[in-house]
This record gives sequence, structure tokens and C-alpha cells, in this order.
Amino acid sequence: MIDLRKSALLTDLYQLTMLQAYFAQGMNDIAVFEFFVRRMPPNRGFLMAAGLEQALQFLEGLRFTEEELDWVRRSGRFGREFPDQLADLRFTGDVHAMPEGTLFFADEPILRVTAPIAQAQLVESRIINLLHFQTLVASKAARVVLTAPGKLLVDFGMRRAHGAEAALFAARAGYIAGFHGTSHVLAGVEFGIPVFGTMAHSFIEAHDSEALAFENFSRAQPENVTLLIDTYDTEAAAHKVAQLAPRLKQAGIGVKAVRLDSGDLALHAHNVRRILDEAGLKDIGIFSSGSLDEFSLRDLLSRGAPIDGFGVGTSMTTSADAPFLDCAYKLQEYAGRARRKRSEGKATWPGRKQVYRAHKTNGIMTGDVLTLEDDPQPGRPLIQPVMRNGKRLHAPETLDEIRRRAADELARLPLPLRQLEHAPPHLVAVAPALRELAMAVDRELIQN
Amino acid sequence: MIDLRKSALLTDLYQLTMLQAYFAQGMNDIAVFEFFVRRMPPNRGFLMAAGLEQALQFLEGLRFTEEELDWVRRSGRFGREFPDQLADLRFTGDVHAMPEGTLFFADEPILRVTAPIAQAQLVESRIINLLHFQTLVASKAARVVLTAPGKLLVDFGMRRAHGAEAALFAARAGYIAGFHGTSHVLAGVEFGIPVFGTMAHSFIEAHDSEALAFENFSRAQPENVTLLIDTYDTEAAAHKVAQLAPRLKQAGIGVKAVRLDSGDLALHAHNVRRILDEAGLKDIGIFSSGSLDEFSLRDLLSRGAPIDGFGVGTSMTTSADAPFLDCAYKLQEYAGRARRKRSEGKATWPGRKQVYRAHKTNGIMTGDVLTLEDDPQPGRPLIQPVMRNGKRLHAPETLDEIRRRAADELARLPLPLRQLEHAPPHLVAVAPALRELAMAVDRELIQN
Repeated sequence: MIDLRKSALLTDLYQLTMLQAYFAQGMNDIAVFEFFVRRMPPNRGFLMAAGLEQALQFLEGLRFTEEELDWVRRSGRFGREFPDQLADLRFTGDVHAMPEGTLFFADEPILRVTAPIAQAQLVESRIINLLHFQTLVASKAARVVLTAPGKLLVDFGMRRAHGAEAALFAARAGYIAGFHGTSHVLAGVEFGIPVFGTMAHSFIEAHDSEALAFENFSRAQPENVTLLIDTYDTEAAAHKVAQLAPRLKQAGIGVKAVRLDSGDLALHAHNVRRILDEAGLKDIGIFSSGSLDEFSLRDLLSRGAPIDGFGVGTSMTTSADAPFLDCAYKLQEYAGRARRKRSEGKATWPGRKQVYRAHKTNGIMTGDVLTLEDDPQPGRPLIQPVMRNGKRLHAPETLDEIRRRAADELARLPLPLRQLEHAPPHLVAVAPALRELAMAVDRELIQN
Repeated sequence: MIDLRKSALLTDLYQLTMLQAYFAQGMNDIAVFEFFVRRMPPNRGFLMAAGLEQALQFLEGLRFTEEELDWVRRSGRFGREFPDQLADLRFTGDVHAMPEGTLFFADEPILRVTAPIAQAQLVESRIINLLHFQTLVASKAARVVLTAPGKLLVDFGMRRAHGAEAALFAARAGYIAGFHGTSHVLAGVEFGIPVFGTMAHSFIEAHDSEALAFENFSRAQPENVTLLIDTYDTEAAAHKVAQLAPRLKQAGIGVKAVRLDSGDLALHAHNVRRILDEAGLKDIGIFSSGSLDEFSLRDLLSRGAPIDGFGVGTSMTTSADAPFLDCAYKLQEYAGRARRKRSEGKATWPGRKQVYRAHKTNGIMTGDVLTLEDDPQPGRPLIQPVMRNGKRLHAPETLDEIRRRAADELARLPLPLRQLEHAPPHLVAVAPALRELAMAVDRELIQN
């Protein structure tokens, strides 16, 4: 059984084809590839790097299993020596990266792979697959976090995430960006992310009486009672909760919150808050879900909706308003010489790069310089060595370390970049040394 | 090690919480849940059902492993008996469904689960996760297929798919809808989908000369030569191919195609076609990729671009213009009584339903009737039994069977529903029997 998440065949066929050509030509010099986003997607003033830990795990574990080599043999596509060459392949290269949770902008590499070209090439597809998705979701989730400071935010996206791995990684990326937890049990098991849960409409509907459903649910799970009140009539259900809660309290069961999931959430929240308050139940919170995103949260909060927490699902887990990043993993150097793609609209900056970030004295970021690794600039260098000769340089960061970094980074964002729409571009200056290298590469291309 | 794809913990926490409450109350009557799409997403005149095979596999394999039960125990969230109750849980219910590849519309169930309520409830999250994604991608891919009849269509989306499983399932869904294959090797291994590959820019850039890169690639993989010609200057590269191809032919190597990936693809395709034709290389095809979707394909083809095949990636694999479906898996009956959710904007049709589809004599579909299972109507019933008492009623369909059904279904689409934009809604009539049941359920709700 092939392990979906680790498989070396989780790649595009052309990677294998090119590897065979590299082997045939004896091309095994060091290649430098960098992963970056070409253009900021719509509505995004900043991006948040995520997925590095999974990329490093993939590189550490890279090898072809016997089952995978069998497929390569049986496919009839490759020469006889190729499976044996693949059998020996491990990742022995270096990785430099921005730590997860770092904010970044278009053209700034967040990961660099330096390795013999076959290794660096083979991993392209999965490295992009891993970095792209978590970065996409962390960047979306960070917008939600900035919009609703002080509110409980829970990932509700498992069911409409694009498959099992997306559900898992979206919970992780959301937590990094500042969400407080997820409804997804496996994400709790795998990453230790706090897991939250309420109840579903079907539970209510399976009972002949809504009030009885509330009571049965509360008694079965007395430590964690959030009652869903929109199945039939939200305000009527709030009155039922107001009647039930004191009785449950005598049995030692505290109702923690009610949940709204449909209709005009601000209106219902105001009504329900009043019903609960009038019953002396000020300690019962209001939690809300239902097609929420940063825009609807902004609207709800601007209307003063008395909502204490939000379940944000599909919009975050699919990054619905911008469901992909225009990102790439491109060759920047081979055999000691800088390389550059010149395709229309897709030209790349050559060489091994570094990003320096300048800040005001209060910590707010003012601008970045994109330059070559050996061209120091004022400010904080964002790209750090994380793997050498295929071995990690540090133990994996904890999610909470990453989450704190992300919060610190978000606190350094200038106000205009926090805008949900029409954020101005962040200043990313390309240093003269990098421009000169690009021109030098072009001159050589013309000569060849 | 928990198997990500089969795990019973690939669920929302509230499913477990509700299960504990059902067990505590001794609620184990038969529940009927149906999966359907509430509203058609933007730009979608029809949807194509997909993912049933994976849903059935999930139900067949449903069980909690020791490792998963350990987590339940250690979580401190549940009573002492609960892990043992979970240990015994298997799926013993019935499933009815529209076969994969069937076209469907809003409010029409494509899957019904009939099982003791704990079983039917627990599987909600993963059933939605599986059906939602493949249906989303098949529906998107079908639009591409309708736009480019007779063209070779290859899924190029692995790298920007939302994780590993999305990459795998998107290739499957695309193939069902009529794509000819995928670049994703693992999808070929797992599903037997034809795998296609060309070459990457990095291969060209790693060589000091583009012409040498073409030659090395061709000699390493002589059976399947597609040369990528946009790395530096598309037309100049086409001239290099024109010089190289006759020489390779003498060595027994045929260049099959060139690939364009940037710039004005129609313009470049015209230029490259002329360059190749003038060199007598009419048999070398032109393959194109680069941010393509059904809209750009329509534009390219309307400009007469001489392109023989397309690699369609991110837009399909993320269904970029509509990255999610407003779908649900809802309780329609419990303990022999029809049930209904009345939430604002999210009310459901109660009971066990069937969809009947009428056709003109030439096969074109004219309209559907949504009604109760026991209320026969003219036309073809779309929902069929597929699993009874937890066992499949038939061997899994082959992908090619499903693909043929999908092609047949697409051929029956009336012209207006094939429109990429502003397709009118398909006629889905709700039968009187179903309306009457909904009213009866409402009357009972008022009494309770």
C-alpha cells in the first residue's frame, strides 16, 4: 500500500522523465531552486508562510519504495537502469527558508533548495503542493483573525476542504494564523490543536421535541454544552434554553453557549442576547457559524452583534475568494551559474536570494529589499538555513512557537496592509546587485 | 500510524459528542440522511456526481483502530463506556445513489444513507468531504470538456491542488468528466488513469544551450518527446525544433509536440504552426498550458489557435471560479417519521426521495421531478440502490464505465445548460406528494 502523503510518486510525470535525462547526461551538479509567489492574489495585502514543517518531513523521508519502483519498471516508460538509480535517491541537500508564520510578499522566496539537480527537481511538485496550500490558508485565516480580535475563532471547514489532507492542513494553517482551534478531530490528534464541537441540526430533528433534544445533549456531554438554536425558530429556541438552563444548573450542568447558524445573524444575536440576559443568563455566550468569512465578520461586528465566537469553515479552508496562489519553484542557479527564465509575464530573478525587512522603532514594518544572499542590506534577514546535507539544523518548531511568531508578525503590519480590500502593495525594492545579475544572465543568454 | 484516508477520526468533534448522546439515550432507530447541493454555484448550469466509489470504500472500511480509541479515551471528553461502543461500530446500513458521472441539479439528492442513527451521523463529515470535492471538480472539468471537443485534455493541477488527496481525486474526477489523462503519477498508479508528461523550464535552464537541452531530452526519452519552447523566445525555439527534428528523425526519434506555456498563446500557436509547417513538420503537434480554464480555451479556439491539446491545472483542480459547493447531508427521516430542518434559507425537503428525469425522443433532457421514493413519475429514476446491510450490491464500476456514462450524460444536455455563463436553471419540479409531506412535517412541528 503506497503511503499517499510520503509517496515519491506524488509528482508530475515530467519530473521522472527529466531525472532520466539528467542521469543519462551525467548532469548532477548543484541546482538552486526557490519557491515564491509571482503576484499577490486579489484582496491580499500580505501572505503568511506556512507548510515548511511538512516540506522538511517530505524531504527527510524521500525514497522510492519497492512498490513504487515496481510501477516505474512496469510502466514501460523508462530505461532499465532508471529504477535502480531511483532506488538510491535520497535528499542530501540544503534548505533555507522563512520560518512559518513569517509574512511575505510577491517575488520574495520563502524556501530555497540547494541540491544535486535530480533531487531538487524531483521534489518540485510536492514541495509546491505543500507550501502552496498551507500558505494560502494561513494567509486567508490571518485576515479573519485581524478582523475579529478578541473573538473565539474555530475552523469548521473539514467537510468542504478539498480532501482529507486539506482538512488536516487547513486546521494547522488556521491555528498558526491565530485561530483557537478546529472542529476536526484528526487535526487535534495529529497536531495537538484544540478541538471544539457543538451539535448538529440532525440531533435536534431526530428528537420529537427541541427542548428534549437540548436536555439530552446537555446531560450526555455536561462539560461542554453548546446548544444549536436555529433548527426551527431561533428566538423560540432561545426561550427554551432560558427555561432549561436554570434546571440544568441545579443538576450541575452549565450551558456554555448557544449557536446561531442561519438567517440575519446580527439580528438574531441581538434578540437572543436580550432573551438570555432577561433570564439572568449573561454567562451563556453566543457562538455563530454559517457561510462566514472576514467580510461577513466585519459586517457583523460593525453592527455590534453580541457574538463571542465564530466557526469559520468553507471560506477559510478553500480560501474561497482566492483559492490558489500564482506560485512557482524555479531554477535560479545550476553548476555555479545563475539561471533565469524569460517567459513572457513569468520572468524570474536569478541567483540565491535573501529578503531584508526594515521596521520603524515601534516595530511596524516599512519595506523589504530583495537581493542576493551575499549582498547584506539594513534590516532583518528573513531567510534562514533550516536543513544541511539532508539533515535538519533544528528540532521542529512547536505550533505554539509558530503561532506566536505569526501573531508578532501581524502586529507589525502597517494599517494599510491590514485592509481587507484595496491594500496598497508593500514596498519590495529589488537591490542593484540583483538587477545587475539578471542583466548579466540575459547577456549570456543572447550570446548562446 | 493513523491512515489519513480511512480514519474514523476524520470527522468533526460534534459527531462523536452526538454519538455519545445517542448511545446514552438508547437512540438507535433507523435514520435517513441525504446528500444534496442547496444552490447551484455561480457559472454552473449543471453538476456531475462523483466520489461515490470513495464514499462506499469509506463506509465498508469504517472502524475505530486501537490507536484511535486510545485518543478517545485519553481526550477526557467522553464517558467510560463510549470507546467500547465505538470499538463495535461498523457500517451496516443501506446506500442509494446516483451513479458517478450522472448530471444533477440543486435540491436533488445524489446519495442517501439509511442506517442506525449513530452510524449515519458519524460518517457525515467524511461523506461530504468525499462527495463534495470530486463532484466539484468533475463539474468544472465537464465545462472544459464541452468547450474543447476533440482536443487532448490533460490534468496539470497536482502542484496547486489542496493537498495530496485533492491532487489524486482531482485527476480521477477530471478523467471521469472526459479529460484524457493527468500529469500526476500517483493518480496513474492508483486509478490506472493515463499519465502524460512534457518537460519543465528548469531542464532547459540547466543547460547552457536550449537546442542542446531539446536534444538531450529527446534522446533520453525517445518515445515521448514534447519540447517546451517558451523559456526564452517561443518563435526562436520553434526554429531550433525545426532544425533539430529532421536530425532526430534520422536517429529514429520523432518529436511528437511542442508546448507553449506563456504569452499570447493563440498568436504564438499561429506563428509556431507556420514555422513547423514551413519546415515540413506538419505532424508535430502544439500542446499548450499556462493558467488555462474553460474561458481561455473558448477564447483560444474562437481565435482559431492551431492547438491540439491543453494542460489544464489550477483552475480545474481548485474549481477556481467556484471553489466549493453549498452542499449538505441532512436528516430526512428518523424512526419512520419524516424530518425537516426549517432554518432560514436552509429548509430541507423531508423524506426518502427519488429524481425522475424526462428526455426528448432524441435523448436530450427536458426536466426533472423531485419526489418521494414511493411516488413513481414518468422518466428515468436516477437514484439506485448500491449498498445493502453494509455490503455493496455490485462490483465497483470501472473508471471507463463511469467516463462513458458521463459522456452520454453530457451529450443529453440541452444547449442552454451548456453555456459557460448565464445558463438558465434546469427545470426541477417538486411533486405534490413531496410538498404535502413537507407541510405535514411542519404541522407536526407546530404541535410539538
